[in-house]
Amino acid sequence: MSGYKPTTDKIALSDVEIDDQFWSPRVTQNREVTIEYQYKQLEESGTLENFQRARDGKNGGFQGMWFQDSDAYKWLEAASYELTKANDTDLRERVDEVIDLVAAAQEDSGYLNTYFKLVEPEMTWTNLNIMHELYCGGHLIEAAVAHYEATGEESLLDVAVDFADHVDDVFDDQIDGIPGHEEIELALVKLYRITGEERYLDLAQYFVNLRGHDDRFKWELEHSDEIGGHSWDDGALIPAEGGGRLFLDEDGEYVGTYAQAHASIREQEKVEGHSVRAMYLFAGATDLVAETGDEELFDAMERLWENMTTKRMYVTGGIGPEREHEGFTEDYDLRNEDAYAETCAAIGSIFWNQRMLELTGGAKYANLIERTMYNGFLAGISLDGTRFFYENPLESSGDHHRKGWFTCACCPPNAARLFASLGKYVYSNIDGVLTVNQYVGSTVTTTIDGFDVELTQSSSLPWSGEVTLTVDADGPVPIRLRIPEWATDVSISVDGEDVEQNDDYVELDGEWSDDTIDVHFELDTKLIRAHPAVKSDAGRVVVERGPLVYCAEAVDNDRPIHQYTLSLEAVIDEEHRDDLLDGVTVLQADAEVPSLDGWNGSLYRPDEETDIQSVQLTMVPYYAWDNREPSEMHVWTRVK
Amino acid sequence: MSGYKPTTDKIALSDVEIDDQFWSPRVTQNREVTIEYQYKQLEESGTLENFQRARDGKNGGFQGMWFQDSDAYKWLEAASYELTKANDTDLRERVDEVIDLVAAAQEDSGYLNTYFKLVEPEMTWTNLNIMHELYCGGHLIEAAVAHYEATGEESLLDVAVDFADHVDDVFDDQIDGIPGHEEIELALVKLYRITGEERYLDLAQYFVNLRGHDDRFKWELEHSDEIGGHSWDDGALIPAEGGGRLFLDEDGEYVGTYAQAHASIREQEKVEGHSVRAMYLFAGATDLVAETGDEELFDAMERLWENMTTKRMYVTGGIGPEREHEGFTEDYDLRNEDAYAETCAAIGSIFWNQRMLELTGGAKYANLIERTMYNGFLAGISLDGTRFFYENPLESSGDHHRKGWFTCACCPPNAARLFASLGKYVYSNIDGVLTVNQYVGSTVTTTIDGFDVELTQSSSLPWSGEVTLTVDADGPVPIRLRIPEWATDVSISVDGEDVEQNDDYVELDGEWSDDTIDVHFELDTKLIRAHPAVKSDAGRVVVERGPLVYCAEAVDNDRPIHQYTLSLEAVIDEEHRDDLLDGVTVLQADAEVPSLDGWNGSLYRPDEETDIQSVQLTMVPYYAWDNREPSEMHVWTRVK
Repeated sequence: MSGYKPTTDKIALSDVEIDDQFWSPRVTQNREVTIEYQYKQLEESGTLENFQRARDGKNGGFQGMWFQDSDAYKWLEAASYELTKANDTDLRERVDEVIDLVAAAQEDSGYLNTYFKLVEPEMTWTNLNIMHELYCGGHLIEAAVAHYEATGEESLLDVAVDFADHVDDVFDDQIDGIPGHEEIELALVKLYRITGEERYLDLAQYFVNLRGHDDRFKWELEHSDEIGGHSWDDGALIPAEGGGRLFLDEDGEYVGTYAQAHASIREQEKVEGHSVRAMYLFAGATDLVAETGDEELFDAMERLWENMTTKRMYVTGGIGPEREHEGFTEDYDLRNEDAYAETCAAIGSIFWNQRMLELTGGAKYANLIERTMYNGFLAGISLDGTRFFYENPLESSGDHHRKGWFTCACCPPNAARLFASLGKYVYSNIDGVLTVNQYVGSTVTTTIDGFDVELTQSSSLPWSGEVTLTVDADGPVPIRLRIPEWATDVSISVDGEDVEQNDDYVELDGEWSDDTIDVHFELDTKLIRAHPAVKSDAGRVVVERGPLVYCAEAVDNDRPIHQYTLSLEAVIDEEHRDDLLDGVTVLQADAEVPSLDGWNGSLYRPDEETDIQSVQLTMVPYYAWDNREPSEMHVWTRVK
Repeated sequence: MSGYKPTTDKIALSDVEIDDQFWSPRVTQNREVTIEYQYKQLEESGTLENFQRARDGKNGGFQGMWFQDSDAYKWLEAASYELTKANDTDLRERVDEVIDLVAAAQEDSGYLNTYFKLVEPEMTWTNLNIMHELYCGGHLIEAAVAHYEATGEESLLDVAVDFADHVDDVFDDQIDGIPGHEEIELALVKLYRITGEERYLDLAQYFVNLRGHDDRFKWELEHSDEIGGHSWDDGALIPAEGGGRLFLDEDGEYVGTYAQAHASIREQEKVEGHSVRAMYLFAGATDLVAETGDEELFDAMERLWENMTTKRMYVTGGIGPEREHEGFTEDYDLRNEDAYAETCAAIGSIFWNQRMLELTGGAKYANLIERTMYNGFLAGISLDGTRFFYENPLESSGDHHRKGWFTCACCPPNAARLFASLGKYVYSNIDGVLTVNQYVGSTVTTTIDGFDVELTQSSSLPWSGEVTLTVDADGPVPIRLRIPEWATDVSISVDGEDVEQNDDYVELDGEWSDDTIDVHFELDTKLIRAHPAVKSDAGRVVVERGPLVYCAEAVDNDRPIHQYTLSLEAVIDEEHRDDLLDGVTVLQADAEVPSLDGWNGSLYRPDEETDIQSVQLTMVPYYAWDNREPSEMHVWTRVK
């Protein structure tokens, strides 16, 4: 098949080469450790065997979660991003083998899902609430687009197109319904962009617009004997008992918030429900705005973004405090020790924000991506790249630790595909302006409005704010540099000549001939308060330095860390230590602890008998916590 | 039967008449509302019907929890205390009817338990871990002793003696084992004291001393097919699945802490496990010390009391933070919002402390009883006497409320029997000294060392510290007045002449002829800190005034209460308001809240932009919380 058209107006992953003192080791580790480990998991968890059995026409013997296929697709996507950057023969062979398996498992109709093929072949498309067929299909499409962009080969893209065409046949002719877990929407827009086939865009619009107007969900919940999922773990997926309970209230009535189906997306006022689902939906909807100029939908995106970022987001960029439904709760409910803040939700937020950024050019989205990258996302991965947090609490008694893998293994492959595609987030072509979103050492070689441009960036972030860019172009290429929200002072010069900036951006128009842009972002330590309505943070501050949120770990401090009170006038010393946590800038702040003298075994005593001792509180970046011996941790420290 | 010997050297409940401005309305309400309501529950819950069916030789049809019989016994005990104080003909008739039922349900052997009689008659004494036969029997004995002391009638005492004799026959000849829920131990000492039969004392010693050396528990856990409990709620009581899981660790191995059977009581270092069970065991063990002079056992009691009161007790006197096993956890784990602090555990602590007080004369025990009475216990009952807390958190988001009754209805009847026997706690004869333990308006008419004495007390507690006592005696009667731990200044005069005191007590020797003792306890508002190791209370204080712990409820304050910070130099105004919460002294303290200005929709911002507003924080006594519209509450307020 031919006719796929590579997009030309976006900066492609292949245009960017990362070479950053902070991020490159993590990206390399992701390629060498995580993606390899992930492949082993595909073998050991039975994911590949599921495809083999489906290919060979066998029945039963399905292994893993009912959405296990998506692990293979996420691996293919991450591996494809690596193939974009380097032609690793061994990796390419394995990618081709997995693609062959996937293709061979596909039915003639285009349908593809090994759970249903092996276990309940008669029950396809009957349990949209829970069974994740469209979710898996969305990851198939994302993998296929990545693979095509990396290799120019259509082996997986053909599978994805056949699947998408099958979905287009079935919906809404035979079935009028939406997926219980969003993902297909953004994937279909990607497929539209690479194929130019408008039916995929229409299908994405159909899924986004039907949400909140859907009778199919309720029908399934009321007809649990007619739908699939009974065979998985003794019927654990029938709506009234298994995953379905998340769609029901205490009285068994349908509530749509879990899957953002409580109202039309155009009318939603607050971010609700499962936070990964919400982020994927909003990412897909923002893609639609970009393609269609749908203003009502854009207004909804802005409204939901405002609600999330001003009422429902951790200072780390993490979202979704509640474990039970992995999602959002009430405004200002930002519990710390019990925070869920799933790593995948932080990644989903980055996906959405990158789309809002490229749609609007708004610096606030790039600022939030930076905050989430360095904190809420990066904390999810151990320094050695082998262990992962599913939940990212902002306080711990010392018993929360990363694990190698999970039964529901969504987070590690999601982290892998983000690391592998980091280059996508550094630069954007926004309305013909080469926009520097993130200060990550790298070279971008691309074409803007017909002019070839090469920009090389070196950056000392996050430890200091020195950035140097050299630019060469064969014609006038406007460049925009984001001013980070944390910068307390900014100086920028082009070839030694100072330039002015506004709050969000420096705009540089000009012709470039090996010119040098020197940037200094003043990087101070700040004490940050949460809004008074946030109960969990009352009387507390978080210490930030540049883009990094800091935390205190008991392993660095003499006392249990709950005993420390920061002075608001604290002198905070900074020391960069190459020997610690792969190199971090450590903060030491003036603090107080209650004296342990004179208690004489009593548990309560008058305040006036309590003496105070002056001490130092040592803090390290939040992303690096839980990489040493287990100990108490908190992000928010009490102040006087 | 005759031969029961009333004890003469203790101050009996019948010797004391309560007439107190604070407590009398609660005691009256307990008689008029709670005990009546409790009787209706005996009818409605099927408790009495269980006895009827057992009497009539029927099979099956058992209603309620497997220890439902104890509800009848606790009601009989509370009602008997009321009969001690006034001969209420109607109440007495109902008491006699219930006693007739109980007696008729008893088997010829002396065995008595309607669950086993109706449901598993062949399985008696097979599941000591969980099935509560000895627990119910203990409450039968306590009721019988109370009834005999109230009426001089032996109708219920005969039943109790027959039961105890049956237990004495079975243990340890046929079965060598201890009860999974203590209660029989203290009951057997009561039965010994009233009958003079040493075999009951021996049996109590047997049960106390075998604990921690018991193979029977483990045998039951390993032979779940040979034991009772299978018929209750589809086998929910077989050890591996039902209540039994509380005796097992995650690997299914036996751990004895839940029922204090992890070590010999003589070797236990810390209070562990289910807190009501622990308190009943320690009460019984303290009774044994009193009877036997067992010094090793006394050392254990002191050691466990020290651990509890210096590491494992809320400032309200409440104990046992953990919901799962209704009990103790680790030293200094005193979580506030999730506090369990069962009302029955506070009552159990009062039972134990009263025994330690009468054994040693130590003022610290009386101080703790006062703290628990006014706070941890009293909060358990609504002001109107109709609703009860099972759990007593020290912080609430406004969704924790008292209920009328519980499936496991231990707390309301336990509260009823404590209110009804309040007179037992006010005075003690300790080694021939008439000791005033509590400042509760009352008259005691008793005999000390052969001399008749009448002491009348009036008290303005807890609102102010004025106490007047008049004493008349026909011979020299030494009197001891406790100095409350909270009194910041004390002045005491006898007939206008000042007397000296030490830290704990005023000792008054003398002959009494309508003499008047005027007491003034200075009653200040204090800010109290918890030990630095208590994470939940770090940076916070509790406000106490006299014996009362105060709390803040949002219903009295403009802002959500988590936003308030108390000034350590706070001026705290006091105002007694007769119109509020049945009359309480309200406190208003200087406090600060963060300004809500200037946030402009942001969720986080630099500390230096945060303004502070001076406000007042209104506080009410903790016992009175949740008696108005639901709202946030906390006991521990942040301080600067």
